[in-house]
Amino acid sequence: MYVVDSMPTATRHYTFDALELDCGRALSPVTIAYETYGQPNASKDNAVLLLHALSGSAHAGFTNDKGEPGWWHEFIGPGRALDTDKYFIICSNILGGCSGSTGPGSTDPKTGHPYGLSFPVITVADMIRAQKRLVEALGIDTLLAVIGGSIGGMQALQWAAEYPDATRAAVILACANRISAQGIAFNEVGRQAIMSDPCWRNGDYYGHTPPRVGLALARMIGHITYLSEESMHEKFGRALKKVDGYHYGFSEDFEVESYLHYKGNRFVERFDANSYLYITKAMDYFDLPDLSSIAAKMFIISFSSDWLFPPAQSKALVRSLRRKSKDVTYCEVQSSRGHDAFLLEVAPLTELISGFLDNVSRQ
Amino acid sequence: MYVVDSMPTATRHYTFDALELDCGRALSPVTIAYETYGQPNASKDNAVLLLHALSGSAHAGFTNDKGEPGWWHEFIGPGRALDTDKYFIICSNILGGCSGSTGPGSTDPKTGHPYGLSFPVITVADMIRAQKRLVEALGIDTLLAVIGGSIGGMQALQWAAEYPDATRAAVILACANRISAQGIAFNEVGRQAIMSDPCWRNGDYYGHTPPRVGLALARMIGHITYLSEESMHEKFGRALKKVDGYHYGFSEDFEVESYLHYKGNRFVERFDANSYLYITKAMDYFDLPDLSSIAAKMFIISFSSDWLFPPAQSKALVRSLRRKSKDVTYCEVQSSRGHDAFLLEVAPLTELISGFLDNVSRQ
Repeated sequence: MYVVDSMPTATRHYTFDALELDCGRALSPVTIAYETYGQPNASKDNAVLLLHALSGSAHAGFTNDKGEPGWWHEFIGPGRALDTDKYFIICSNILGGCSGSTGPGSTDPKTGHPYGLSFPVITVADMIRAQKRLVEALGIDTLLAVIGGSIGGMQALQWAAEYPDATRAAVILACANRISAQGIAFNEVGRQAIMSDPCWRNGDYYGHTPPRVGLALARMIGHITYLSEESMHEKFGRALKKVDGYHYGFSEDFEVESYLHYKGNRFVERFDANSYLYITKAMDYFDLPDLSSIAAKMFIISFSSDWLFPPAQSKALVRSLRRKSKDVTYCEVQSSRGHDAFLLEVAPLTELISGFLDNVSRQ
Repeated sequence: MYVVDSMPTATRHYTFDALELDCGRALSPVTIAYETYGQPNASKDNAVLLLHALSGSAHAGFTNDKGEPGWWHEFIGPGRALDTDKYFIICSNILGGCSGSTGPGSTDPKTGHPYGLSFPVITVADMIRAQKRLVEALGIDTLLAVIGGSIGGMQALQWAAEYPDATRAAVILACANRISAQGIAFNEVGRQAIMSDPCWRNGDYYGHTPPRVGLALARMIGHITYLSEESMHEKFGRALKKVDGYHYGFSEDFEVESYLHYKGNRFVERFDANSYLYITKAMDYFDLPDLSSIAAKMFIISFSSDWLFPPAQSKALVRSLRRKSKDVTYCEVQSSRGHDAFLLEVAPLTELISGFLDNVSRQ
């Protein structure tokens, strides 16, 4: 048996100059961290670009030499949804991120110091334009598919709209062509939590204590929106930490409180608060009403208990695509796991995605 | 015409000694701020106790001498839901609050300083035991009805369960007999926002700058849960503050962001951060599985778009009451206004509540 998870992978970096941005500024140099799994075929028409969500990284697949499995590793490997025997999988860290790609924590060549808030506000379109440069550098003219969930789905949509000749298919998970007012509201409260932390220092905290408390708060708020009420109820209900009842104080009483604290505190060890600001802003700005340029076969997948990107919004996107006579398939996966379902529902997603990619690659 | 809203009202105070609390401690003295509207009848059987939600106060009805209408003033007056020609309405500020009743900002007689975190953690049952003392002092043995929304509904439920002989009817709005894991999670993130603010000083900020930033954040989080996605979409959608597009920075872009900032900043002018901690904790602790003692006629009202206390939870409460053969009526009001609907849906609630009270008072 082929033990896929022990195949070591390493993050590589691609650097290029002068990326023009939606805000009117340009960024130079730009480094994009990426990993690949599987091999390109002779005709180089088997490449799948995987696009990560807010807290993801280039490390999507096989366990790396530090023993860390990738954020979607159950979906990547021989016989899996993204079958490495068939496809050449590329995953890159988004522009503005903090896991190897250029972002607010990178050194500004003009000053020799980290950008901080002088980093330009980037958009989802800026992210995919950087990815396009990487894909070209890897010798790929046309992608078999782009695939992503949440803000990764926004990137996949933007790919399909902006590079119709280079995108044969797109799989959009737990996403819509814009985020709701409620989604903006949650993102803004998370940003306010970070920017209210005295350690944030207007974004200029590199070399000092970072705004851990604010970032942990933002992550806690985020986590509530990633789970469904149903999954929180199943996981925690009103279970208490102490067996002998209430504690009559302001430390943790309930398991759900411990879970949030744990998630918040773990996140600050691996994520940069400024990147959180930039990426959530890009998410809020994303709004793609005009779908007319899309040529890709579109596969929209929603999850029944996702309330951050609810099925109703995915269906509205499907209707918009239908009205433009696009090739679109829709599936709502029944799941209690909320928005996070796109990371967790391995069995149904593997069936759906591998079937779809098979179909696309045969054409 | 009788201009009800110009009838001046004033908040009065009732003080008593030694309230035993669920946590095992006692509080003394206890002051409860209250207002009344209408008059008790000769047999003193027309009293209705109105119970406020997290941010309410004793000032529920007629506009006061500062020109401020009460938090439920459209429901209080001649011909209104709580008809002052028929009923004697009592509304008191909850124990632990910050609008005249004893709370963490009150002076501890033992030290001469504000309690801060040395104030005991109180429960919904503690709140209603203090109310019972006030009601008795007003010469009322039996209440015609108790009525409240959100944590006010929890108090009404507790009244019905703990004082069955003194509670003829209860109207429970936008509430359940416990809060969900998701509700606890939101409350905890709000508390963490307050307690993370350096101005909080472990609760000992009286006489110093209070933790405004943390309290505003907590309120912003709360406000998202009080509105529905639908009402946010109707009210704001993705409307921008600037007509000429995105701002490419981290100040407000969207109307929904301004709204949240406004709500957060206005709240800190009138509310004490420690009271926010104590009241949300009481809300989380509330859990009334045993409904067997209830003798009151129960009226449970939910709102279709309320996701903090969704109709499914109200229906579960109705089923529990039915299983115990209690007298219970249920109504789901169709409203896009989310949890806040219990403050806003004047027309349908006026019909429902006045009909119910009429029926109870005729028996």
